[in-house]
Amino acid sequence: MANLKQVAERAGVSPATVSRYLNGSLSLPEPTREAIENAIRALNYHPNPFARSLSRGRTDQIQMVVPEIKAPFFAALVAAVENAAFERGQELAISVTLNRPGREQRYLDSVSDRHVDGLIFVTNHPEVAPLKSRIDAARRVVLLDEDVPGATAPRLFCDNDSGGYLAGQYLARHGHRAIGVIGTGDEMHSGAARFQGFSRALDDSADGGYRVHRKTGSYTIEDGSRLCAELLDEHPGITAIFAMSDELVIGTLDELARRDLRVPDDISIIGFDDILPLDYFATPITAIRQPVEALGAKAVEILLNTDWEDPAACSRVEILPVTLVERSSVASVPPAPQATVQHESNR
Amino acid sequence: MANLKQVAERAGVSPATVSRYLNGSLSLPEPTREAIENAIRALNYHPNPFARSLSRGRTDQIQMVVPEIKAPFFAALVAAVENAAFERGQELAISVTLNRPGREQRYLDSVSDRHVDGLIFVTNHPEVAPLKSRIDAARRVVLLDEDVPGATAPRLFCDNDSGGYLAGQYLARHGHRAIGVIGTGDEMHSGAARFQGFSRALDDSADGGYRVHRKTGSYTIEDGSRLCAELLDEHPGITAIFAMSDELVIGTLDELARRDLRVPDDISIIGFDDILPLDYFATPITAIRQPVEALGAKAVEILLNTDWEDPAACSRVEILPVTLVERSSVASVPPAPQATVQHESNR
Repeated sequence: MANLKQVAERAGVSPATVSRYLNGSLSLPEPTREAIENAIRALNYHPNPFARSLSRGRTDQIQMVVPEIKAPFFAALVAAVENAAFERGQELAISVTLNRPGREQRYLDSVSDRHVDGLIFVTNHPEVAPLKSRIDAARRVVLLDEDVPGATAPRLFCDNDSGGYLAGQYLARHGHRAIGVIGTGDEMHSGAARFQGFSRALDDSADGGYRVHRKTGSYTIEDGSRLCAELLDEHPGITAIFAMSDELVIGTLDELARRDLRVPDDISIIGFDDILPLDYFATPITAIRQPVEALGAKAVEILLNTDWEDPAACSRVEILPVTLVERSSVASVPPAPQATVQHESNR
Repeated sequence: MANLKQVAERAGVSPATVSRYLNGSLSLPEPTREAIENAIRALNYHPNPFARSLSRGRTDQIQMVVPEIKAPFFAALVAAVENAAFERGQELAISVTLNRPGREQRYLDSVSDRHVDGLIFVTNHPEVAPLKSRIDAARRVVLLDEDVPGATAPRLFCDNDSGGYLAGQYLARHGHRAIGVIGTGDEMHSGAARFQGFSRALDDSADGGYRVHRKTGSYTIEDGSRLCAELLDEHPGITAIFAMSDELVIGTLDELARRDLRVPDDISIIGFDDILPLDYFATPITAIRQPVEALGAKAVEILLNTDWEDPAACSRVEILPVTLVERSSVASVPPAPQATVQHESNR
């Protein structure tokens, strides 16, 4: 059966445009309208799959649990899951845990209790051990974005390791040999993998040795400012900073502005996420882009298509590729030959 | 009883910091930690009100329905409601309607069916007439951000009229007399009120007459580009644009960049919402700021404190003030004496 995406492709518009047109929230020029209507007829597309599922006598409801909703990455991830769920005729209930373990556990239990058909679960704090048994009991849980080690569930991550590698390689090729890294620590899947890839890239590409100074905290604006300040106070010789989230980029920019340091003339920055409109920034920020639309679509697909009786399927890990979006926040520096210490990490 | 905010004030940190500290998701320096613990003791604050309500044998659950979640304003509004609900010991279920009337109606019905204690309802499409009877039946519904005319429900809006007035007055005082406006049309509460305030300000402040060219659509990046292009094609003499949302600002900037027009040298912009990090933009954008935190807190307060048996309370309208955040996107222009047409609006 034709889906919304095929209609959109045939009509030469985005799926969101077709979706909005169908629900009446978008006024379109006549030729666009006509192209969509023609595509719907040609493909025999039936919009409103939700109404169909109601007529089958049951509600297809899935749930998504996120730690917060204001951070652009999570807002975009929820929106991507919402769009994918909509296309599959699924209604999505969204809950925010603020990383409180009690809330996380209760939502997981709601799957065990069969109140929802399945759950896409996102957490981003390190104390996840108690969640393992709840996830095992719940089944029909997809772990997205961060890991809960040991839990039996399909997992979907972006390629954090490659993202770190791309960032490290890019800085090394631009001559940087004394670099600050701010992000989460190794207790978080994303922080560990991004830093591991980053370090490997410097080993591969930074001729003449390098020094990396790592500061860890959470993915927040406040920690971006705080960790950037610590880096600059303790290691004034750094020429670049790898900030592992959009919020950390903002916090870093704030701290650099307070010290009248210009990007990239005085110091270079490379970010991660690329959900904020970094293109429009005073210095457009080079960043590793998370495949947020693909993550949302794939998470819904895994939740709906997994055979939950199959142990192999329930331990599958999918990794989606990231890309480096080059803008103007990294300058080339002449490599100084002094740096020979391999690397140093301090919390 | 002391609340989280009072603890935060006494400790000299943000409520979010206290909240994150309490749920263990934030590592803090020892002095900050101590300040929070002292404040908790001094105020006899009991964190985790949710656990208390569970011990009373019922779940305090409220629902929030929003048209979408990716737009920064809605993400911020949901986060603000989430924080306020958390402080009041309420669990929040969030649903996205993508403006589909079927979804909106079903969520409203879930209040009538007593599945949730109350609903904060946000819509942003014009065909809301069918929702009126559902809202009347549901009761315990707070209308937030946009109106459903005729429905019996307390309403909470930002001061759209004053926001429009501030924008118009600011442009007029900077000498602008030929201005483009892009936003929603009069069928939407926000678009109507913002434009009304804007026009009144020009009547009050634009000596020598003015011309306003209005283009209407939805609050999206795509419509920002499209409406900006129409404005520039049809009215090349405009010196400023009032773009009624963050997304419309982004779309406008895209279109101006395609035409190699610089802000504010070639054309001035003033925006609305101010949720995106406009401070960091190449030209920091002057904008009317929505009181999004206050809107979230007040919406939860109205939902929980309204006496639903009292007709006066159920028709109360609350308006929260907006502010103009001055940055660098509006230039002063010498007022040209030619403009005498009062104003012109075309869709």
